[in-house]
Amino acid sequence: MGIEIERRFLVRGDDWRHAVTGERRLRQGYLAREDGVAVRLRVAGGAARLTIKGRGGVARPEYEYDLPLAEAEEMLTTLCSGRSIAKTRHLVPYEGLTWEVDVFEGPLAGLVIAEIELPSPDHPVGLPSWAGQEITGDARYSNAVLASAKAPPRG
Amino acid sequence: MGIEIERRFLVRGDDWRHAVTGERRLRQGYLAREDGVAVRLRVAGGAARLTIKGRGGVARPEYEYDLPLAEAEEMLTTLCSGRSIAKTRHLVPYEGLTWEVDVFEGPLAGLVIAEIELPSPDHPVGLPSWAGQEITGDARYSNAVLASAKAPPRG
Repeated sequence: MGIEIERRFLVRGDDWRHAVTGERRLRQGYLAREDGVAVRLRVAGGAARLTIKGRGGVARPEYEYDLPLAEAEEMLTTLCSGRSIAKTRHLVPYEGLTWEVDVFEGPLAGLVIAEIELPSPDHPVGLPSWAGQEITGDARYSNAVLASAKAPPRG
Repeated sequence: MGIEIERRFLVRGDDWRHAVTGERRLRQGYLAREDGVAVRLRVAGGAARLTIKGRGGVARPEYEYDLPLAEAEEMLTTLCSGRSIAKTRHLVPYEGLTWEVDVFEGPLAGLVIAEIELPSPDHPVGLPSWAGQEITGDARYSNAVLASAKAPPRG
C-alpha cells in the first residue's frame, strides 16, 4: 500500500501556464464508490491503471495496478458510463515541488484544480499566486464526486 | 473481458456431500459496489484475485486480475470491513458438469448455495436432487448483497 498525501486548490487565472513543463490528457472513470472507497480506472499516454483509494483526507491509502489497455478502455465505456472525467494535466514546478494543474473538459469545463503531493501531511508548501481556495478534503471537489457531476461545483 | 454465465440454486440437505471431489476455503470482500458494478477481492489457497463484475443476470461481464497476496489481505481487513464473506467451496461433479457448493460461515451460517457455470445461457442443465429453489438473478442472494447481510435471507 502507498499513502497518498495531497493538498488541492482551485486555480485563479492563467499565470501558471507560462511555467508548464509537460502535459498529458487523462481519461478516468469510477467502477464503483462505496463508503469512502473508490475504484478508479485511468487511461493516459497509452497505458492504463487501476487505483483503489481508501478513506482519508490529506493522507489516503492507495493501491495501484497496471491493467491491459484494451480492457481498461472497454470498462471505461461499458462500466463507468456516467462516472467518468476527461482532463488535461499540466506539470508546473514551483519552489522545488511539482504541481499538477488539471483543466477539466466536457460538463466540467471551466474547472481548474491544482494538486500537490507531499512527503508528509505537515510538509511546508509555498503557495503560488494562482493557487486560490483550498479544497483539500472538500468532497464536492473529489474526482469521484466530480465524475458524476453535470457542472462544476459552485464555490 | 470474460462473460460469466451462471445459474444458482439453494441447496437442500446433505446428499451432495458424498460426491465432493475437492474443497477450499474462500474469503472475499467487496471494495465497492455501485449501479450494478461490483469490485471484489478474493483470497483462496494462498493466492489473491481482483474481480470486476458488470451488470447482468445469468450472463455477466467479468474481468479478473491477480493481486499481491499481502496487499489483498490488507485491503480485505481495512477497506472491506462489513462487506466480506467467508465460505467453503466444494466441487461436486454431476452429469458432466462440476457444481460449486458454497457453505457460508459467520452471520450467514446455515446458507448453502450451489452454482453451475455454463458455456451458454441456454445450455441444458440436469438438476441434482439436492438443488432446491433457483436464485439466479435474485439480488438478495448475490454475494455482493450477502457480504453486507447480518443473516441469511428468508426464502
